[in-house]
Amino acid sequence: MNIAKAFDNVRAKTPLVHNITNYVTVHDVANIILACGGSPIMSDEPEDVEDITTICNALNINIGTLNKRSIEAMFVAGEKAAALGHALLLDPVGAGASRLRTTTALELMGAVKFTSIRGNISEISTLAHGTGTTRGVDADAADAVTDANLAAKASFAKEFAARTGSVIAITGAIDLVADQSRCCAIRNGTRRMGTITGTGCQLSGMSAAFLAANMDDPFTAQVAAICAMGLAGELAEKALQPGEGNATFGNRIIDAISLMDGAALEKGARYELL
Amino acid sequence: MNIAKAFDNVRAKTPLVHNITNYVTVHDVANIILACGGSPIMSDEPEDVEDITTICNALNINIGTLNKRSIEAMFVAGEKAAALGHALLLDPVGAGASRLRTTTALELMGAVKFTSIRGNISEISTLAHGTGTTRGVDADAADAVTDANLAAKASFAKEFAARTGSVIAITGAIDLVADQSRCCAIRNGTRRMGTITGTGCQLSGMSAAFLAANMDDPFTAQVAAICAMGLAGELAEKALQPGEGNATFGNRIIDAISLMDGAALEKGARYELL
Amino acid sequence: MNIAKAFDNVRAKTPLVHNITNYVTVHDVANIILACGGSPIMSDEPEDVEDITTICNALNINIGTLNKRSIEAMFVAGEKAAALGHALLLDPVGAGASRLRTTTALELMGAVKFTSIRGNISEISTLAHGTGTTRGVDADAADAVTDANLAAKASFAKEFAARTGSVIAITGAIDLVADQSRCCAIRNGTRRMGTITGTGCQLSGMSAAFLAANMDDPFTAQVAAICAMGLAGELAEKALQPGEGNATFGNRIIDAISLMDGAALEKGARYELL
Repeated sequence: MNIAKAFDNVRAKTPLVHNITNYVTVHDVANIILACGGSPIMSDEPEDVEDITTICNALNINIGTLNKRSIEAMFVAGEKAAALGHALLLDPVGAGASRLRTTTALELMGAVKFTSIRGNISEISTLAHGTGTTRGVDADAADAVTDANLAAKASFAKEFAARTGSVIAITGAIDLVADQSRCCAIRNGTRRMGTITGTGCQLSGMSAAFLAANMDDPFTAQVAAICAMGLAGELAEKALQPGEGNATFGNRIIDAISLMDGAALEKGARYELL
Repeated sequence: MNIAKAFDNVRAKTPLVHNITNYVTVHDVANIILACGGSPIMSDEPEDVEDITTICNALNINIGTLNKRSIEAMFVAGEKAAALGHALLLDPVGAGASRLRTTTALELMGAVKFTSIRGNISEISTLAHGTGTTRGVDADAADAVTDANLAAKASFAKEFAARTGSVIAITGAIDLVADQSRCCAIRNGTRRMGTITGTGCQLSGMSAAFLAANMDDPFTAQVAAICAMGLAGELAEKALQPGEGNATFGNRIIDAISLMDGAALEKGARYELL
Repeated sequence: MNIAKAFDNVRAKTPLVHNITNYVTVHDVANIILACGGSPIMSDEPEDVEDITTICNALNINIGTLNKRSIEAMFVAGEKAAALGHALLLDPVGAGASRLRTTTALELMGAVKFTSIRGNISEISTLAHGTGTTRGVDADAADAVTDANLAAKASFAKEFAARTGSVIAITGAIDLVADQSRCCAIRNGTRRMGTITGTGCQLSGMSAAFLAANMDDPFTAQVAAICAMGLAGELAEKALQPGEGNATFGNRIIDAISLMDGAALEKGARYELL
């Protein structure tokens, strides 16, 4: 599992990522895709998305501020991208928090096979069980992946990966990435990342770029992207000066990704196959 | 009137704020709600908003880039949030600048009772008189609250608060907060805050969090939020280094909120009951 | 050609710019319009845009995340703004990348005469030839304006300007601004500006403000805006400290514009009439 190479492939290949994503964090999503070496394009009009996704290498679907038009666009784009063999990522923001979000995510999973599905534990549990509760866009603390329940959560992730054929990425204090046969735990990142909006959305956008640049090994690509995001959070926190707070921290995450390469990622990554 | 406690309550209770807001400043709105201790969620699809607002504690309606879909969502969410006894805030961005904005704001006020209505003097005057002129999203200078007209403006604000049953917050060089019996003038803030987009929208989002965490005293909650925003602007301005300008200033405002607590707010706040 | 005066006119006149623009970079567009001395307002609901554009001095149409509603709003606002003699700018983001984008841009050009059309070489070529290929939102490298093809590209730009009656602004490593009789090449800017999202969109928003403040000389206004953006990029790059990357660079561009005036622009601008 060569995560350094996975990152360097993004910079070498400049994958073009079509994003149908929420308008809250979209600017950061675009910038982090650029910062890691990809190229973003946003389009959510059903009549526009087929053409746009055709010229791309990956599709990042994030249901954060979904509406009827964008939902239609997600299906149109998803089916086209799947037919073309592109990397597909689903970020089920708020699945479990509303019926529309839960239903949309499940129906998207029924319509196309995602290369990777990335969410917090509450969102992923909702998708796995068809129902659930999510506190807004944050995970329910009672669900959290901990050292005490790591084996059980890893089994759950592998089982869900086997059932969907997707890489499953569950992010939180400890991140898990699973395919049907393996599960990797990642311990990069800091609690402060939860105090700003969009680190999850940014990770999803960046993951789509990593997946597109590493189509032969989506598991490693997904691990690499999560390590990179977590490491960027650590570097951003370390760089904070007295008087600096959340907004500067957020900017420094994108700064850190823009300055990172595969070797630096490998050096700072903390992951273990379970 | 304990504004320190009002702020500390936000950090203690982590209110969840549903925002139907414009896509220009939404990222900063989300981040400042997080920075003050709340948790934001955005949703503007009529089929989604009932579920989302139900799990929240406050609803922030900002008509900044309204469209027919989001207007419908404002009414659906507003009526649900009102029925559930949530804190409701209206930010009538651009009321007076277009008929659609004026009408939408007035009809929302007819449909639900807002806990607080926050706007600039031109927007609030428009709502009070049913008509008005607003220079885009900025107040008309001729309307400004000054020391010379402070008593008259305070009477106007109290009268409008009595008529609506809402706290009325008029922000500008001097801010006024009124309920039917009291009016408070706030002198925090700097002119530079008008040179970046979104300080008003951020204040509205943060106010919704303060209102939700202080349901027993919305007047004090609204005063506290305005003092906090103004103080953050002052701190951000003082921290500016040579060569730094508007974008850095904007980031430092969110930084300052993320580092503030009730005690610091109380120390820096400049307000007086009229 | 007095670009210093063109900039100072923006600060003196504070033009109000109506933007129908994409939700990816809209926050930066609003902030750079403020930073250069203008005042932005965003509205893309067909029922809202006539009133809003009426109180403005310029209309900036950017098709970056167009949808059917916003397309309708572009035509309604465009026709109203044209009837009122406002400055009109078209940013054909992604023309050539999808049929909807190409068609929308061409139909807008058929419906109203734009004061200026600003895009990358692939987008402008698409509009000139009615068809084309664009790599997402980036120009095709094979099309780039270089010293070797400068005369030919200048002729193309002048011919297209003559045909449309618009100032034509083609931005890239070398920028070209043409009207029917003149073409100016601009060599400000740095490659790093292509590694963050939105420098093009920001330039378009700022250009609309410059055009509105210099209605008697749109050619000079457009040259001045491009020089200002490029110079801001150079200053932002020079100010970067070790450990700072893309997000800080982006903030520093807006910082630099907010600190710039006509004299500083004239001093740092590098342009030549061809």
